[in-house]
Amino acid sequence: MSTLKLPHHVPQAAEDCEQLQKAVKGWGTNEGLIISILGHRNAAQRKLIRETYAKTHGEDLLKVLDKELTSDFERLVHLWTLDTAERDAFLANEAIKKWTPSNRVLVEISCARSSEQLLAVRRSYHALYKKSIEEDVAHHTTGDFRKVLLLLVSSYRYEGEEVNLNSAKTEAKLLHDKISKKAYNDEDFIKIFATSSRAQINAVLNHYKDEFGKDINKDLKAADPKNEFLALLRATVKCLIHPEKYYAKVLRLAINGRGTNEGDLTRVVATRAEVDLKIIGDEYQRRNSVALDRAIGKDTSGDYEKMLLALLGQGDA
Amino acid sequence: MSTLKLPHHVPQAAEDCEQLQKAVKGWGTNEGLIISILGHRNAAQRKLIRETYAKTHGEDLLKVLDKELTSDFERLVHLWTLDTAERDAFLANEAIKKWTPSNRVLVEISCARSSEQLLAVRRSYHALYKKSIEEDVAHHTTGDFRKVLLLLVSSYRYEGEEVNLNSAKTEAKLLHDKISKKAYNDEDFIKIFATSSRAQINAVLNHYKDEFGKDINKDLKAADPKNEFLALLRATVKCLIHPEKYYAKVLRLAINGRGTNEGDLTRVVATRAEVDLKIIGDEYQRRNSVALDRAIGKDTSGDYEKMLLALLGQGDA
Repeated sequence: MSTLKLPHHVPQAAEDCEQLQKAVKGWGTNEGLIISILGHRNAAQRKLIRETYAKTHGEDLLKVLDKELTSDFERLVHLWTLDTAERDAFLANEAIKKWTPSNRVLVEISCARSSEQLLAVRRSYHALYKKSIEEDVAHHTTGDFRKVLLLLVSSYRYEGEEVNLNSAKTEAKLLHDKISKKAYNDEDFIKIFATSSRAQINAVLNHYKDEFGKDINKDLKAADPKNEFLALLRATVKCLIHPEKYYAKVLRLAINGRGTNEGDLTRVVATRAEVDLKIIGDEYQRRNSVALDRAIGKDTSGDYEKMLLALLGQGDA
Repeated sequence: MSTLKLPHHVPQAAEDCEQLQKAVKGWGTNEGLIISILGHRNAAQRKLIRETYAKTHGEDLLKVLDKELTSDFERLVHLWTLDTAERDAFLANEAIKKWTPSNRVLVEISCARSSEQLLAVRRSYHALYKKSIEEDVAHHTTGDFRKVLLLLVSSYRYEGEEVNLNSAKTEAKLLHDKISKKAYNDEDFIKIFATSSRAQINAVLNHYKDEFGKDINKDLKAADPKNEFLALLRATVKCLIHPEKYYAKVLRLAINGRGTNEGDLTRVVATRAEVDLKIIGDEYQRRNSVALDRAIGKDTSGDYEKMLLALLGQGDA
């Protein structure tokens, strides 16, 4: 469920472009006007605004905004204004280029999107970077991480509800067996996470719990809490089965840590506002006993705060 | 270039269906009539015929044909009548289920198709088998073969002409180095074959030849002529860069061996007739000093021969 609030009467794209042009031209920038427009338009409307702006003013609105805005606010507006697949391709490329074992962006893009959405990201990646995403992953990541990430970004998971219960049993046993032997880079072990459908993985997890008494993610954590490779597998499971819990936790760590992690906060709000930010917010509140918008309001300020809260559905459209 | 010959005036699908219905109903089957229709209709026309037949007669034309026809002729008509992506999904599924190290069908489907065509195959695979192709590959193949095949079937190669010459040099050296150390399952080695664009692989091969004096495929063969894994890598390179040579050789082995390999012959003709069978035929003739249709005519007989030759463009449409 989206948190985005649209006005009852959405202006024509040409009208929005005129207002945006006013906001960025001349002395000073009218950030409030930018937020009041872009913070209350859906993906299709933003796309049309960008196209119309390019036609009318001969410039890419995104580049104009990048020049006028700064810092976290600039990044949030930039990510938000991008087309969904383009945004994910952009985030993936960033994550690949400065890849570290603790980076989870590629897992999010591979596992918390639909199969067709991931294909759209791969198409955008071609268009933007003149390479395939798997080529760049193979080039910039290493070892067991590369093994898993290559399969994840290339996956096109089946999305039907059919489940093979026999396989689920065998796979649950295999997972338990490999975890107890610490054989985390075993190929049979990895392929369950990297290729199965959500329904099938869910069946495997249920069997795992029935048979061995614990959630697999608990066992993966207990096996070695500091191991980043296991953390990546846990993120894979969570993004596939409970994306709202996964994202609520990312927000929790971004907000509640020492200082705010604006990178994570911006990414989650920009990528989920039109998807499930409402549910993520509910999950956040349940776990932290404070509303997400209040927590964000306390931790951020200025135009950045205003834009975040607009995307969270606060205030009038 | 296609070898398919269409009639000047293509009948309406309803008319074709009526004729096909005549050919299959009553005493005996009129194979000649079936060949004269299906052997001279392109993919879009065959699709429409199948749809129209299902609407008019309440049955799947393919099932009706399977019941009436037999043996190699049945299989050729079946493969040919299938929609392109469905046909590849069907062939991939067969190849996966009875997978052997010498099977090259998955390489063909991964590397001798466009990136978008491979995606279409993966979509058809979901629809037909309620699973992803990568799930089945992971389940049925093993070892180093699995490693490569998983990446191949999941690839979405960049198709632009841009080439990174520095990478090409580095990669050519790496390939040479790994081959001389017999480190064929090295992940950096494998990923060059599995993820690079055609243009990039071509640049790597050119550098390889300039630097080390030989075609990489020659070196891969010399390294161990009986090694099926190296043969698979050679097939990957050939399907990507010179599909017409790859297929001409498959035909050569299918026709010139002891007895005919109808499986290979049928698959190549059915999958390439509308793509590049003309060029494959020219390549075949250059290498074997006999025209492809003459060679096939000598090696086959009956309706199977007639249908093969129809797809090769012999006779009137």
